[in-house]
Amino acid sequence: MILRSSPASPFARKVIIAAHHLALLDRLQILPADTRDPADSLRSQNPLGKIPVLVLDDGRALYDSRVILDYLDDLAGGGRIIPRGPERFDALTRQAAADGVMDAALLQIYEHRFRGAERRDADWLAYQAEKVARGLEFFQAAGDRPSDRVDVGDIAQACMLGYLDFRFDGTWRKEHAGLVGWLDRFAHSVPGFAATAPG
Amino acid sequence: MILRSSPASPFARKVIIAAHHLALLDRLQILPADTRDPADSLRSQNPLGKIPVLVLDDGRALYDSRVILDYLDDLAGGGRIIPRGPERFDALTRQAAADGVMDAALLQIYEHRFRGAERRDADWLAYQAEKVARGLEFFQAAGDRPSDRVDVGDIAQACMLGYLDFRFDGTWRKEHAGLVGWLDRFAHSVPGFAATAPG
Repeated sequence: MILRSSPASPFARKVIIAAHHLALLDRLQILPADTRDPADSLRSQNPLGKIPVLVLDDGRALYDSRVILDYLDDLAGGGRIIPRGPERFDALTRQAAADGVMDAALLQIYEHRFRGAERRDADWLAYQAEKVARGLEFFQAAGDRPSDRVDVGDIAQACMLGYLDFRFDGTWRKEHAGLVGWLDRFAHSVPGFAATAPG
Repeated sequence: MILRSSPASPFARKVIIAAHHLALLDRLQILPADTRDPADSLRSQNPLGKIPVLVLDDGRALYDSRVILDYLDDLAGGGRIIPRGPERFDALTRQAAADGVMDAALLQIYEHRFRGAERRDADWLAYQAEKVARGLEFFQAAGDRPSDRVDVGDIAQACMLGYLDFRFDGTWRKEHAGLVGWLDRFAHSVPGFAATAPG
């Protein structure tokens, strides 16, 4: 299988960490994609022009990261990183929260990358930054789960914090000691996290 | 259960159509939410401040629309709108494609709603519009599926087209006759679609 990816993408990182964790990494051929290049085959694989995309051996393309994680979980037997019991919707909601924080963080980066300074909007940037701040409070308040089984919510949460380290100088660390400890423990038990550090 | 919603949201529309289709609508109490109002309880239910959110009777809040559709499918016995067989990842990828088109359409609306004319960026608007255009080509090329079972991909596709009707004057109809016919057939077989038309 081919994974269209980029080292800086927190969503692609979710996929690689999941593949690591499920012992499926050797099944993935990682092929970088340039989301800004119209000539890149990415747009024929995913009309949204976004990464990650997983191209199966029969040519079918799966996206986005959540769908790919679901596929990898299924390939590994099912119920591994997406719980089947009552914790299922808690795990999926934590994944959605972390994905949403990453979207809000990316929109701040895009505000700088895509447009000149005179077209940046302070209110829009603040609106997105507040989503990130509330998301961090949500995860901090949630604390550690009783289970030590890694799920899609944990993987997304770790990629979210890693992205804030990468693009926002890790300023979240100052006021979220609980999350700093959480991420240290996650990184210790999931080697794929350190192996995929961006930059 | 309480659904935090808004009549104009294509993502909330997915949830209501799914509840309709699964005969779960009478279990939902629909409570409007104002995503721009910091005093709305929405932000305590979903730190991202986005709709839809499903608040369960025990107080747990589930989001986003994909997670809620998964929950409703489970509540209806499972395997109803999210296939369990080999079609599963096709359905989930079509849902992701349609959700992504809706995100790109919403970002164009927000570009006008959130900022003054002097801070709008034509290149950014074009970048998002191209995602919508490629998404429409993708669905047009895919054509009708052999199965007549409604899945999450169909529901998202219909909400995507409905949103383009609502906010972009239905200009997609001119060059996508195949999709016009598809949407007519969907609306005919899924009464929840007409029942949730915005505006």
